[in-house]
Order: sequence, then C-alpha cells, then structure tokens
Amino acid sequence: MEPASFLDIVTNFKAVFLDSYGVVKNYNGLIEGVPETFDYLREKGIAIRILTNDASRSQEQQLASFHRMGLRGIELEEIITSGMLAKQFLKHKIIRGKVAYLGTENAAEYILQSGFPSVPVRDIELDRIDDIAGFAFLDDEGFDWNTDINKTVNLINKKNIPVIVANSDRLYPVSKNDVAVATGSIAQLVESILNREFIHFGKPDSQMFMYAYDHLNEVGNGNRAFERDEILMVGDTLHTDILGGNKFGLKTMLVLTGNTRQEMMDVLIRSTGIIPDFIGESIVK
Amino acid sequence: MEPASFLDIVTNFKAVFLDSYGVVKNYNGLIEGVPETFDYLREKGIAIRILTNDASRSQEQQLASFHRMGLRGIELEEIITSGMLAKQFLKHKIIRGKVAYLGTENAAEYILQSGFPSVPVRDIELDRIDDIAGFAFLDDEGFDWNTDINKTVNLINKKNIPVIVANSDRLYPVSKNDVAVATGSIAQLVESILNREFIHFGKPDSQMFMYAYDHLNEVGNGNRAFERDEILMVGDTLHTDILGGNKFGLKTMLVLTGNTRQEMMDVLIRSTGIIPDFIGESIVK
Amino acid sequence: MEPASFLDIVTNFKAVFLDSYGVVKNYNGLIEGVPETFDYLREKGIAIRILTNDASRSQEQQLASFHRMGLRGIELEEIITSGMLAKQFLKHKIIRGKVAYLGTENAAEYILQSGFPSVPVRDIELDRIDDIAGFAFLDDEGFDWNTDINKTVNLINKKNIPVIVANSDRLYPVSKNDVAVATGSIAQLVESILNREFIHFGKPDSQMFMYAYDHLNEVGNGNRAFERDEILMVGDTLHTDILGGNKFGLKTMLVLTGNTRQEMMDVLIRSTGIIPDFIGESIVK
Amino acid sequence: MEPASFLDIVTNFKAVFLDSYGVVKNYNGLIEGVPETFDYLREKGIAIRILTNDASRSQEQQLASFHRMGLRGIELEEIITSGMLAKQFLKHKIIRGKVAYLGTENAAEYILQSGFPSVPVRDIELDRIDDIAGFAFLDDEGFDWNTDINKTVNLINKKNIPVIVANSDRLYPVSKNDVAVATGSIAQLVESILNREFIHFGKPDSQMFMYAYDHLNEVGNGNRAFERDEILMVGDTLHTDILGGNKFGLKTMLVLTGNTRQEMMDVLIRSTGIIPDFIGESIVK
Repeated sequence: MEPASFLDIVTNFKAVFLDSYGVVKNYNGLIEGVPETFDYLREKGIAIRILTNDASRSQEQQLASFHRMGLRGIELEEIITSGMLAKQFLKHKIIRGKVAYLGTENAAEYILQSGFPSVPVRDIELDRIDDIAGFAFLDDEGFDWNTDINKTVNLINKKNIPVIVANSDRLYPVSKNDVAVATGSIAQLVESILNREFIHFGKPDSQMFMYAYDHLNEVGNGNRAFERDEILMVGDTLHTDILGGNKFGLKTMLVLTGNTRQEMMDVLIRSTGIIPDFIGESIVK
Repeated sequence: MEPASFLDIVTNFKAVFLDSYGVVKNYNGLIEGVPETFDYLREKGIAIRILTNDASRSQEQQLASFHRMGLRGIELEEIITSGMLAKQFLKHKIIRGKVAYLGTENAAEYILQSGFPSVPVRDIELDRIDDIAGFAFLDDEGFDWNTDINKTVNLINKKNIPVIVANSDRLYPVSKNDVAVATGSIAQLVESILNREFIHFGKPDSQMFMYAYDHLNEVGNGNRAFERDEILMVGDTLHTDILGGNKFGLKTMLVLTGNTRQEMMDVLIRSTGIIPDFIGESIVK
Repeated sequence: MEPASFLDIVTNFKAVFLDSYGVVKNYNGLIEGVPETFDYLREKGIAIRILTNDASRSQEQQLASFHRMGLRGIELEEIITSGMLAKQFLKHKIIRGKVAYLGTENAAEYILQSGFPSVPVRDIELDRIDDIAGFAFLDDEGFDWNTDINKTVNLINKKNIPVIVANSDRLYPVSKNDVAVATGSIAQLVESILNREFIHFGKPDSQMFMYAYDHLNEVGNGNRAFERDEILMVGDTLHTDILGGNKFGLKTMLVLTGNTRQEMMDVLIRSTGIIPDFIGESIVK
Repeated sequence: MEPASFLDIVTNFKAVFLDSYGVVKNYNGLIEGVPETFDYLREKGIAIRILTNDASRSQEQQLASFHRMGLRGIELEEIITSGMLAKQFLKHKIIRGKVAYLGTENAAEYILQSGFPSVPVRDIELDRIDDIAGFAFLDDEGFDWNTDINKTVNLINKKNIPVIVANSDRLYPVSKNDVAVATGSIAQLVESILNREFIHFGKPDSQMFMYAYDHLNEVGNGNRAFERDEILMVGDTLHTDILGGNKFGLKTMLVLTGNTRQEMMDVLIRSTGIIPDFIGESIVK
C-alpha cells in the first residue's frame, strides 16, 4: 500500500478521530508540528476527537497535559478516555460495597469516585473481603508488583465479583527502543491463570467509538450530521485503532509515529489481516 | 444465586432485550407460554427488542417465522440481527468488487445485496480472484464442507481483504441433547490456521446493544427516555448475552431454557466470572 | 542468518533426522537429487531416520511409496511416523471397548488393529455409544465433513473418553500455491468448541524424537553411541521440526523446500522466536 | 469415578512415579503418613521416582529438604526435576556467551553452572547485550517484579535468542486457601506480549517421563524390565501429572491432597477431558 498524505486525505472527511499516544504525542512529548495540524483541521472545519486507552488520568488531567506540552487548540469534551467508559459502567452496575483496584490513587479517584468507596489491593486483607463488590484494573503503576499481583489473583479467585479492565493496552513505548508492560497485560495474566473473562474497556471495542460518535452528533447539531464514512480514524496500532475503526465502519489511517514501524508494516498487515484504508507517515504531513 | 421470577423482575424495567434462540424459541419451536409473556409485557408498557446472532435470515424472514410459530405480538423493527450490522458494515467499507461468501444464497441475498455483486466460495476459481474485494462468513449451511473450507483458507491466504463474520456463535442446539457447529467456529478455525483476526458481528460485542439502544431511544420519544439501567437483557448464554449486556451497562438475567443447564450454572458462572444480575427458569414464569 | 550447505554441515554429525514432506518429497513427488543425498549419507556412514507426522499410512506403506517414487536406499525401521506412537499409546491405555475414529479405513486398520474393534464416526448412532472407549483423529480424508464433524463433537461431548490426535499438523501444501486443512486443525476445532485438551502425537512433542533416538542407540550398538548434539534434525517447519528438535537438544536445520519460503523466513524466525542452528536451501546442496 | 485406595492399587505395578508438591508434601511440610507409604513401597519392591516441576533447587537440595522434613527413605537419583532437563538442554544448545535469567541465584547456580557465565536480569544494561546468548526463566523469586519483568520483555524483544522455561507450572498453593503466581505464568505473560513461543520443560511434556523411564530401566537391570503399563503416575494436577502420564502411556492416579479438590474433581475431569485411570484420596491410604 502506498503512503498517503494525512493533510490531503483528511479534507475528504467531516471529522477525524485521533489516537493520542503514537499519533499526537510520544515519549518525548508532543510530536513536532501537531499544533499546526490542529490549526489546519479547525480552519477546514473538520471536527476532532481524541480517543485514548489511557485510563490513568481524567479528561481534565489529559487536557492540562496537552496544554502543558503546547497543544492549546483542544477542548475538554473532545477528549474521550477508556477510563470514562469504565466509570460509566461502574456507576450502572455496582450497587453497594467497595471496589478494589490495582493502580494509582489518582486513577482510582477519578474512575471510582462515583459514590462508592474504593480500596487499593495493598490495603486488602484476604480473610476480610465480604464488602468487596467489584474489582478494577486501572493502571500499571501505583502498586507493588511483587505482592499485589498475587493478592489480586487470590482475591478474584475467592470472590465472584465483576472485574473490569479500564485500559486494555498490552504494551506502551517508553523510549525510542523500549516498551513497558501495560495494564491490559497484567489483567490478561490474571484472566489466563484463573481461566476467567473480565470486562475490558477501550479500543478496539465498539463502545468507545460509539461514545465518540454519539457525542459528535449530539453536539454537532440536532440532525445526524455525521455519517460513519465521513469520519477518519487515525492510529498507530493495528489491533486497537485500526481494527476498532474498521469494525465500527469508519475509514482508517495507520500512521508510523508510534507502535508500528515502517519496515514491519507490510508484514503486520499481511499477518494480522487488519487492513487500514490509508497509510501515512504522520499527522503532520 | 437464588432463581427469580422473570415476570416479577421485569416490572422494574422500562425495556427488555431478549435473545431469540434458547429464550423465545428452541429446536421445538416457540417455548410454551411465550405469547402470553409478550402480551404481559405489552400490557405493562415494557418495550421489547429481540437481539439475535442468527444471520441466516433477514428481519422480515425472522418476523414471518415468529408469526408462523404463533408469536404475533412482535413488530419488524423490534427484531435486531447480527446480519443487519454486517450488512451496514459492508455498505460503508467495501467500495468496489465482489464479496465472496460461505453460507446460503438466502443469507447472501439479504446481507450482500447492498449494491455489489457476491459470489459463493464454490464458484470461485483460485487463480482468478482479482475482483474479490471482501469475504463474509454468513452461515454454516449452503456449502460443501469437504471442499469449500479449504477453498476459503486458500482464498483468504492469497488475498489480503477484509473478512467479516456475520454470526459469532460457536455452537447451537439442534435437539434436546445434540448440538451443531455454527458459523463462528468455522471462522475461528480459519482465523487460527492463518493466524488472522476477522471482524466479528453479534453479541457480546457492544455494537448490537448500541444499535438496539439507539433505536429504542429514537423511536421511543425525542428525549433519551431509556437509561441503560432501565433495560433488562435476558439470555441463555453467558459468553454472548450476559457478558455483552453486562459490558454495555444493562442489568442481565440468565434463563435456563437454552445453552445453560441448571446443574452446570453455578460452575459456569464461577469458572467464567461472567455474573448475571438475576437467574430465572424462563421468561414464562 | 546466512544459508549453509546441508551436504557440508551434515558431515559434522553422526546421524540425521529428516522430516518427510517438504524435505524429502513434496506435492510433486521426490525432490530432485534426494536419492543422491541418501547415497552420500550412506557413504559417509551417517545414520538416517525419517520422522513424519503423516499418520495416514503405515511404515510399510510409506516405505513402498518412497520406493515407487524412486528412493530405494531406505529401510523400514528408518521410518518413524506419529501413527506408530498413537498406536503404541492405544495399546497401553484402552483396555476394552471400541475406538471410534475420523479418517480413512486404511489409517484405522494400521493404527487401531491392536486387538480392539474400531468404528468410523459415520457408523456411530449417537444414542448407542455405551461401548465406545476412545476416539482417534487419524486423517483429514475418509469421512464426510458435512456430517461427521458434528457427530464427532456430539460423541465427545456426551462420552468422557480419551481422545487422541495421530497427526498434529495444521496445514499441508497440495500444490505450489495451495494448502489443505490437516487433521490437527480439525481436532483443534473440536478442542476449542468443547474447551477440551486432547492427546496429540507427532512433532514438536518430544516423544517422537525420543523414539527415534532410543531406536538409533539400540540398533546402533550396545553402548550409547549417539549423543544428542551429534544428531542434526532437518525440517521445513519451525513449529514442528525445529521447535521439537531444539527442545530435544538436537542441532537443527531449516530448509526452504516446503512450508517456509525464503522471503518470509527471517520474519517468521524473528516473530516466533524459534531459531534453527542452520538454514539451508535443501538437502540436495 | 469411584475413589480407590492407593495402597491397594499400587501393588499391581512395578514402579510408581510421584509428583512432589500436593502428593508427597504441601505448604505444611510432609503429608502425614508418607514415610510409612515409602516403607510400604520398599517392602513390596515397587520402584519409586519423584517427578517435580520445581526448578528452584537442585536434586541435592531437594533430597536434603525431604530429609529435613523426615522423609529418609529416598535416594538422590530417585528425584527428577524439570531443572535437570533445562540444564541438559543448555549444555547441548548454547555454545558461547552468557545466559541471562530471572530467578534466584541458587537456581542459576545449579542450572547454569555448566561451563558458561550467567547474569541476572537486574544486572543487564539493555544497550549492552551483545554477549547474551540465551535466556532462562528459573523461578518466581529472586528478582524485583516492578522492574525486571519489563527488562525481560525488552531484552527478549531486542535479541533473538533461545528462551527456556525451567518450570512450566502456572500457580502453586502457599496455604490452605491461597496461591501464588509461578514461573510458568510469568513466562507465558512474556510469550503472549511478544507473540513468541519459548521452550518449556517439565510435566506434561514427555521429556521428563522419558528421562525417568530410561533411568529406571538402566538402573533397574540390563534388560528392559519395566513396561509403561507397569508404572503408575500419581499426581494432584490434571494438566501436568495426569495429562503427561496418560500421554506417555502410563496408568495414572489423581490424588486430592493438592491442587484438585474433591468437590471440583468431576467438573474438572469432565470439562478438560483429562481422565485419570484411578482417583484416590492420598498416597497414605
């Protein structure tokens, strides 16, 4: 597949959904030229939504972070996180009792604040778990892997409660060459050990696309102004961004500023069968 | 978990989503007492949607079949099939060229009619596949397993095209004691052989729930009358109906008239970690 | 990894284990030059064993087939098939009752002859299965896929009996460009549907290597003449020949006359992590 | 299946293979009555081998531990560990360079001592890995999970080297009610993240059974005194002890003093399809 220019292609669309990490920013901060791309999209009247599987920080915190990095042309409601969907789920399904979690206090605060108390795994005593009503994998930080993963396995094994995974990503890059194990991998370890199936939020699941799509149409104007094929999903990862976008009926563009490197691109597309409609170097060209 | 009465429980909800096979009907036809249940729901003003992973027949055909079996109190738009979602996807994503398929001509007609030509796998010559632009697993009937599964493997291996699975069910019961391999299993065989990931439609994916939910709210009245926790999803299968309903934020009820037998129920819930909010014998009590 | 010459490399070893399909022969018959390679190995005093996952034919039949194709310098006891191991297992474990099977009558005859009666799936009546004491997946031919796969699923679901898979291969090439679904894939479909784990024979399992190794040493001479690192395993498939050989402690060589094509070789080694000690074009150079 | 008495059943055999943890000992030390069982077996002239997936300690250390717990009637050569097989593999396959490992120094010492230097993951600098020639998962202790799992992922991702797993167990019990994540699970996490396939040692793989069997026959007497069906494999875990024993052609007995509890036994046998020949309460009755 021949590389295409994002700035050209996007003019055929009324809205663009952007993955955050690997598309808008990376381990170095904002990708150079992104503020100019946002200005260009605004000028052309193309609606923007950022869809991120990062559940560690709230919309407000992610907005503040973009601002700090120098991306000012972005509004709170244009940021959609998998944590928001996890939070919405918990509000509907857990009626009473505490939610135990693996992750940072910050993630717990914004996801679990919805009216019920929460408790980090580290503070749980395994013989006193009567009041635990749910479990949430929130982040790969904020706990001690040496002890808290085992405690999590035992807790979930003892108590039959709903378990949610607020971020299904398996890996994330931490430098040009290195990666780190993400929340989704830890959750999958526990699923595999216990032969269980947890409730995952974030791309590629349709729920996040649906949320962005509905929001776009509600805010946009009264009548459904945006058809699915008028929206371009841009991402750096085949299994989340492109698979999810394809499945939801959006047009999709793979960019090469993140997880997928140029030299592996063809092999990965061929071997997974996940086919983007377009391939571009980045969103700044 | 103690069994509850569906007829009691449902009065706490404004809408009910019902799986078809194993809940409304089974291999014998309509489950006895179902027409009375529908009358009861109408009387109480509870909205009904049937969500089925059966992609072999169109809405119209499924409606006609319900009528033939003696269930008259059901409207066309109240039936939502995974085939409808597959059809919608194809309309958006496949631009030109033929869609090859595995399944009956009837399924092909209603799913693939959307403006592009289709061709059953049996009629494909593997050295003349330039014009094939997509592939669809539609049904477990309508083809010769001895030859057409191999042809499918070779076609998808040679040509990098979007592949959809219109019905992700693995098995279906054909009598009190016997089951048959369903479309989802055949697709998974090919995925596993080629190490590929196809695009699956149907429960437990959120897309079908979203479709039903949006439709309910559009038709219902102008303002969002139905909250998610005002809807009860009823199904006989943990991995599709209950997992999907739970994830979408609905309340869920497992009934024992289909795939899940009373004596295995506790073990299955325990071992999968998929926990319904309620368990009932059937929707007629 | 740089390609090496098999004829050079092999002189460093006292014995060579050869996969059959993709190394010695292919869909066209014997690979050109193989008889000369065998003469060369005999001349150098290098012991030969052929290790094949083909369970459809007996040692005698495979020998006759090699002879017909023009490979005469090979003895009966130098051919080791996964079917022999399956047969040995059945002799030890099934005490009384019939063994049901999916495959050709020929395969059934040589594998199941060991003193107990056998019955093809097609002749089974699902309500009369009291005397079925085991099940064997023998071959991908000799039955009707349209009916007998479903019968197999139901039989194994109803009756808790040992199930063996005499050939674990997933695919085999039937021409330069086309493949066919092999016995291992059909067995895996049933395992996956029923969430069961069958007993698989053939590479990469250690049992076949052990059988060949023990036999080599018994026949060779009284004292253990062959150390593991004095044996070279040559195969065309990473997941069976190379993984199995590596694990058993043999040196391994991947050749490019079968399943693994030159242009995909590096990617496959990199992505699977299965690393041969040598790579060669074929066993004739 | 009706429970049987081990002490009765075993008299029909010439040798018995015993799993260690869950059969001979548990988290409390030796299971009460085991020394008497060993005396009984000696008296009857039944050969004994202990087959353990515990790779953290050498034969000598395991022997010393049995002695400390009060089991004196056991010889060094009767203890077979998965670590011994891993060690043997490394000796044959890794020619030069260091082996990096995750585990205790003790495990590294006895497994990796074979002539090449080893280095714990913690001491590796990811930009200086030219001399790393292999990787070994040895134990779930002896490293910091917070940092060393990520380092392992990056090391194996950067460098295409053979990776071995010296103990494939997923979980082990640490008290009556609690379990801990074992080496096999950590290795599987990394395999799953990188989509790789490592080389696993230990039950259910045939290699360990073969080693014990060959040893038995070599030591026993000159002519092959022990047929496979004259050996009883006793274990507490279906997926390792029973599957492995069945596959190797041994008779198998599941005991209920470890991983498999009485109340789950039938469901587990039914759902996995792994069927022991006998079930017994323990080896002391």
